[in-house]
Amino acid sequence: MRNTLAFIGTGIMGAPMAGHLLDAGFPLLVHTRTRSRADDLIRRGARWADSPAVAAAAAGVIFICVPDTPDVQAVVLGPRGILASARPGQIVVDHSTISPAATREMARRLAEKQAFLLDAPVSGGDVGARNAALSIMVGGDRAAFDQARPILEHLGRAILYCGPSGAGQLTKLVNQVLVSVTNLAVCEALTFAKKTGLDLQTTLAAVSAGAANSWQLANLAPKMIARDFTPGFMIDLMQKDLRLLMAAANESGVCLPASSLVHHLFTSAQAAGLGKSGTQALYTVIQRLAAEE
Amino acid sequence: MRNTLAFIGTGIMGAPMAGHLLDAGFPLLVHTRTRSRADDLIRRGARWADSPAVAAAAAGVIFICVPDTPDVQAVVLGPRGILASARPGQIVVDHSTISPAATREMARRLAEKQAFLLDAPVSGGDVGARNAALSIMVGGDRAAFDQARPILEHLGRAILYCGPSGAGQLTKLVNQVLVSVTNLAVCEALTFAKKTGLDLQTTLAAVSAGAANSWQLANLAPKMIARDFTPGFMIDLMQKDLRLLMAAANESGVCLPASSLVHHLFTSAQAAGLGKSGTQALYTVIQRLAAEE
Repeated sequence: MRNTLAFIGTGIMGAPMAGHLLDAGFPLLVHTRTRSRADDLIRRGARWADSPAVAAAAAGVIFICVPDTPDVQAVVLGPRGILASARPGQIVVDHSTISPAATREMARRLAEKQAFLLDAPVSGGDVGARNAALSIMVGGDRAAFDQARPILEHLGRAILYCGPSGAGQLTKLVNQVLVSVTNLAVCEALTFAKKTGLDLQTTLAAVSAGAANSWQLANLAPKMIARDFTPGFMIDLMQKDLRLLMAAANESGVCLPASSLVHHLFTSAQAAGLGKSGTQALYTVIQRLAAEE
Repeated sequence: MRNTLAFIGTGIMGAPMAGHLLDAGFPLLVHTRTRSRADDLIRRGARWADSPAVAAAAAGVIFICVPDTPDVQAVVLGPRGILASARPGQIVVDHSTISPAATREMARRLAEKQAFLLDAPVSGGDVGARNAALSIMVGGDRAAFDQARPILEHLGRAILYCGPSGAGQLTKLVNQVLVSVTNLAVCEALTFAKKTGLDLQTTLAAVSAGAANSWQLANLAPKMIARDFTPGFMIDLMQKDLRLLMAAANESGVCLPASSLVHHLFTSAQAAGLGKSGTQALYTVIQRLAAEE
């Protein structure tokens, strides 16, 4: 039983992650809201569990990968949730990006049963999930982390212990500040370049060599120029993360002027029907402000 | 005379650049506001010119590297300026970062005498100037650029033709949008991390691998954490560039919300006496907003 794992939430991220655990030879229980989304894993040897509680009853380590805070709360605290069958020494690893405060509260509830919650949000997207190349930012009990680490190494390339409960979520939010504000920098730079008549490819080549460079510039600027707005990371998901950021910043008394700005500008993208587009579609919002296109 | 060069403005940037031209064997005339700042170049073989006009009278290509738009205007259009002795075929290369509109106007005035103005602002700072490793973004007549290029290769590593007159200046402003807004992203990320109790080194390691990375993060975040605010690039100089950006954006009808924000936040840094500090001192402004330190 120690070796048996459970995976709750087998969506775009969760399914390939659960698949890596199967490939590594772990007995695996799965549960997800829409059962058909677990079919492939079950064909590959996973067993279906009727609820998170059933999955947890038979597993030493339970992984969660669901969309948002209320979803994780339902999986952990709900009537047929993990907490109902939690036992001493059990480890719950939550890969969802959710509220750090809600994370700490659930960790406290599980600790009452001597079980551990590790918050372990990831970056790297569905490509990273499929290639087991995720960055995993982990908060929670250090000994529980050390125990879970060998399993996490089947899912990601960089497994980082960030600190006590919530620290993984907070680190993910730091990541999203950088990603989204740098993206806005690229949108403003290209809009200014286009409206003032510069050739965009030449400009990109000119500024990519030095202090202006970033992952966002290198990866998203070419897509903006090509008007390719297919999602690497969807605006709706970024907005969820930025809402978590705004709440956490509020609670901690941190004023984040550029992050709030980009959050509101993404709202404009959503209003224009671009919520399912990639974050690089923020470019169209800045262009519209300049009466371009 | 075709081979004789002139260099106007031998400050922190101009002096090492002029030095590279001397090293390359060009006969060189120099003129600068404070004559003593040319002493070293004169010891190394440069000849002193009493005015830009005198320098221009004897040189085929004249380089300018002075602080701001009015300084270049004085050098070009002033009573003893370059225009007074401009001749057909002469090329003026302006390495200063100044107004694109003023650049186009000066190019027009020189063109009346069949002389060319290339705007050629640089990035790479005083280190880049000393090591001949600058990026040089050039706007103006293409044939004049092709003629000047072999000389510019003694000054920089990346010599980029950006388009007609003003395009070099505009490209430099694009660069400054990216540099300054990405810097703000780093300041907000670290302030949020610090105030929410994360370990800054661990956080930096966690977010540096992927989509959050940038030159600003890699190079300035460690300085912010160490509270090392010695200038790589001074806030006062960035503010000059952002003022040029705001004016150019206004003229072209471009709305740059994050760039205006960072311009105003830098004003707060200047108000706190940090104008001579490096741009990474913006971190203290965001920290102050969070009542940190």
